[in-house]
Amino acid sequence: MGGVLDRIESPADVRRLSETELLTLCDEIRSALVSSVSVTGGHMGSNLGFVEATVALHHVFDLPVDKLVFDVSHQCYTHKMLTGRKEAFLDPSSYNKYTGFTNPDESPYDLFRAGHTSQGVSLGCGLAKARDLLGLSHNVIVVLGDGALSGGEAFEGLDNAAEVGSNLIVVFNDNEMSIAPNAGGIYRNLAELRRTHGMCESNFFRTLGLDYRYVEEGNDVLALTRAFKEVRGIGHPVVVHIHTRKGKGFAWAERFPESAHHIPPACTFSEPSQAKKEQSYQEITRDFLREKMRRDKSVIAVNAGAPSGVGLTPEFRAECGSQFFDTGITEQHAVAFCAGLARGGAKPVFFVMATFAQRAFDQFVQELGLNRSPATVLVFGAGFYDIDATHAGTLDIVMTANVPGITCLAPATSDEYLAMLDWSIDQQERPVVIRVPERVLPGSADAFDPKRPSGWHMRTSGSRIAFLSLGSSVELSMEAAALLKERDGLEATVIEALNYSSFDESMLDSLLEDHALVVTLEAGILCGGFGEKVARYFGPTPMRVLCYGGKKEFLDRVPTEEFFKIYHFTALDIVSDIEALQL
Amino acid sequence: MGGVLDRIESPADVRRLSETELLTLCDEIRSALVSSVSVTGGHMGSNLGFVEATVALHHVFDLPVDKLVFDVSHQCYTHKMLTGRKEAFLDPSSYNKYTGFTNPDESPYDLFRAGHTSQGVSLGCGLAKARDLLGLSHNVIVVLGDGALSGGEAFEGLDNAAEVGSNLIVVFNDNEMSIAPNAGGIYRNLAELRRTHGMCESNFFRTLGLDYRYVEEGNDVLALTRAFKEVRGIGHPVVVHIHTRKGKGFAWAERFPESAHHIPPACTFSEPSQAKKEQSYQEITRDFLREKMRRDKSVIAVNAGAPSGVGLTPEFRAECGSQFFDTGITEQHAVAFCAGLARGGAKPVFFVMATFAQRAFDQFVQELGLNRSPATVLVFGAGFYDIDATHAGTLDIVMTANVPGITCLAPATSDEYLAMLDWSIDQQERPVVIRVPERVLPGSADAFDPKRPSGWHMRTSGSRIAFLSLGSSVELSMEAAALLKERDGLEATVIEALNYSSFDESMLDSLLEDHALVVTLEAGILCGGFGEKVARYFGPTPMRVLCYGGKKEFLDRVPTEEFFKIYHFTALDIVSDIEALQL
Repeated sequence: MGGVLDRIESPADVRRLSETELLTLCDEIRSALVSSVSVTGGHMGSNLGFVEATVALHHVFDLPVDKLVFDVSHQCYTHKMLTGRKEAFLDPSSYNKYTGFTNPDESPYDLFRAGHTSQGVSLGCGLAKARDLLGLSHNVIVVLGDGALSGGEAFEGLDNAAEVGSNLIVVFNDNEMSIAPNAGGIYRNLAELRRTHGMCESNFFRTLGLDYRYVEEGNDVLALTRAFKEVRGIGHPVVVHIHTRKGKGFAWAERFPESAHHIPPACTFSEPSQAKKEQSYQEITRDFLREKMRRDKSVIAVNAGAPSGVGLTPEFRAECGSQFFDTGITEQHAVAFCAGLARGGAKPVFFVMATFAQRAFDQFVQELGLNRSPATVLVFGAGFYDIDATHAGTLDIVMTANVPGITCLAPATSDEYLAMLDWSIDQQERPVVIRVPERVLPGSADAFDPKRPSGWHMRTSGSRIAFLSLGSSVELSMEAAALLKERDGLEATVIEALNYSSFDESMLDSLLEDHALVVTLEAGILCGGFGEKVARYFGPTPMRVLCYGGKKEFLDRVPTEEFFKIYHFTALDIVSDIEALQL
Repeated sequence: MGGVLDRIESPADVRRLSETELLTLCDEIRSALVSSVSVTGGHMGSNLGFVEATVALHHVFDLPVDKLVFDVSHQCYTHKMLTGRKEAFLDPSSYNKYTGFTNPDESPYDLFRAGHTSQGVSLGCGLAKARDLLGLSHNVIVVLGDGALSGGEAFEGLDNAAEVGSNLIVVFNDNEMSIAPNAGGIYRNLAELRRTHGMCESNFFRTLGLDYRYVEEGNDVLALTRAFKEVRGIGHPVVVHIHTRKGKGFAWAERFPESAHHIPPACTFSEPSQAKKEQSYQEITRDFLREKMRRDKSVIAVNAGAPSGVGLTPEFRAECGSQFFDTGITEQHAVAFCAGLARGGAKPVFFVMATFAQRAFDQFVQELGLNRSPATVLVFGAGFYDIDATHAGTLDIVMTANVPGITCLAPATSDEYLAMLDWSIDQQERPVVIRVPERVLPGSADAFDPKRPSGWHMRTSGSRIAFLSLGSSVELSMEAAALLKERDGLEATVIEALNYSSFDESMLDSLLEDHALVVTLEAGILCGGFGEKVARYFGPTPMRVLCYGGKKEFLDRVPTEEFFKIYHFTALDIVSDIEALQL
């Protein structure tokens, strides 16, 4: 085998291939993906299912004159291999040279950074309309996954495509599941479309005014090539519905599609249920809720289409029965759904990743804050993580603590966390957001007083300098206080700000008596965050305030330790900064 | 005429009415609405079209045991008249006792405060699921307008209704328009459904797994009563599609449905185009863009289904031709659409009300900030207005200035505004948000330097005290400075913070030399806002900072002058506060 992939340097090389070479190329890419992703970790299942479609797109269309947009873009590995970045998947040591998503900084063939879902068709509509305004005539192609279809923005985009009216080719990749099994009534229509090979009269896409084609053999590169050639240059929007298999060609991935969606580095491909369980907030939450739900049938766990990232394992979901609800990738709906549940007398607990919660900002304001809906929101993944910029969870404080009517709690220890969760579920007065900490710190729950949910906890009482920290960053406060004592002989005060939506004003005011500096710590961006509110509070007074947290910037896969250094989020840096103030 | 309405004190009275009485009641309500809304102003068209449906719902269902949810809720006037609040529509002097939207603080028949659109079905899904968890059996009814259907959250809700699976009755009020004419491919399907009286095979609602009924006579209370009786107690979700006429029964409102959607107090019912034009930012923007678009065909105005509030009149839209695009009520899509337009080489200008922009927070982060998309966003209605809490525009700074990568500009004068707009449209580096001020202040444009878009402008240079203000609040700064001079002989510095996403650090640092206090002013809530950032900046220094703006609270129709007083947003209050600091 000469190796077709060896000869592919750019899409132009794919356009020239014969049918036999196309088939060979797909096999080579699939083997490369299985070997390399097994080592590096990454999105395995979604990419294995989309090998043939990507090759066919590059063979038929004239990139980069024609424009290709990936929704969510976690299925872009083959695209990267065909656009000059194959070493990332041939040599695991090169994997980190590129992101796992499309990125215009990497390649002219990548048009957008996209990590959240359901925006692809909207972006495509914009490209199509711009083309029309400028009098150009290229194709605009959008790859949309079936998981992304549950998100309202995808509906908005499809609904608008007909209004734009000109060439727009939506390749709808139907692998019969989202990250988890699909949720939503529309998936019955998709099943009917698959069963009838696209011939049934009832057709979601056509009701939105779109033309429609169906390709059953979504992993057959030649069938796809024919289908794409048919729609190339079409003068109106069309959906090409292709039926693919997630994890295609790799037995383990086909058998455990949810686990195979994204795998860890050096994956052992064990049975998912055999995976080692570490003591984590995910586990702590499951154990607590299992018991709570058993005693109270009105408690319900809600998730928006991404249960694995927040610890809602398939086993736990099954245990919950009707007390679990996956709304699909629909954060807006999920928050309003929780408001409805709460008003109806149930006790909803919404599990959400900080980064995806951004999509429900207006619902936090209107459905939770303004309506005082007693729902509990558990925000996971908030803070500094070594992750793609698209998935950063550093804006959650901005979008919750600044909204009237929402009580925001930041536990430092697991016992505090459980006390807050228990209180929040049963109270009936207000929406509560709990910022689930990164690390599990042991410690007593006494710090949180359900009778005074806006109260803070003073860990150590000192003078001159007070540390005021959110969540598990109290550890760093304690460390800095110890170092301050060692180096300067100062006994600092250390406070856990258990509630970051309001102030324990009597505690703050008491600091004015014998403190000269308040140091705030939070794992989030400082702009619009907690520390700034403290700075404003003390603004008119002689108290100095020094805030630690993140800069307003996008960090792309920066190792945690590294930006702890950049942000002076270490005891030594903090103490040095304090000393430099010469108070 | 005995007057049926006279005898209605609660829904129980409506349930007992005969068919003749139901007909009379509708006539009486319609007359009352026309007379009273003509005087008080309010949502005229949407309410006139929904009189019969509301009467029929109250006649057939057993409220408040059965649960009725209004999406957006601007069509709830008849509901208010039937639930103990009719004096608001019989006696104009009582109109302000109640809000124009549903409000649980007013009545047990109102389940949610709802002023933004498309959340009703999601709320209803929550009520239905809560009912099932608690083992109850009442009906849950959601009223959904056709405008709201374009919003993705409505799709998410409908798609989830089938998954909840139990009783949920969605009354879909199809009056053939949103606030403006409907936009989106789906409206063709609705037209086909109307044409075939719901019999055509292609049916959007059925593709989502929902049962479906059609009622052509949506303004016939008896036909509606029959239809609602048929679905009462149904064991699965069903959409009852009713065809109504916006403005029904009032010739002017039927003729000018867009103008009649919401009318001002003491409406004269003139031809809309005859309405007097005041010098406003809406007019200034139209005049500028008209000329700009003529010279550059790649400039495009984009709006998400609410053009009237942002000055995009029907005449202007017609003039723009293909250089205007209404995406329907789809803020998420609209922002992503603008990112696509920008990447495709066009120059999008997105017109949005501050309150509705909240719905696109994630798209501001991902599609604009992270992707550095050179789109221009004009935020109207930001700041303190005498308006319903649902429509407050005080969180825009929170959701733009804290997001990495977005340049936020606050012009104080109309010339500054035009200089910023001109620069923003043509630059290709970054997304720009312009906070359109409330009042048009004259003044030169020299303050804004396109070569240094993060620069601020010093209006007067003084010592001891510096005012740092956003947008038109510079007027108040000047006033306070004058008063300070008069009372205390101090010459204060006054600075326009033209850019509120970053600091003019050299200007800030220069204040440290001979100033002791910085006073910030912004028309928005202080939490997460601009002043707090200034407080953090000066936190470690001896500089005192005093921030003026709004508290973190929902204000419901509070006259502007009143909360200017509450927030000390007057020259006298500010100067008194400064004096009290005894610096």
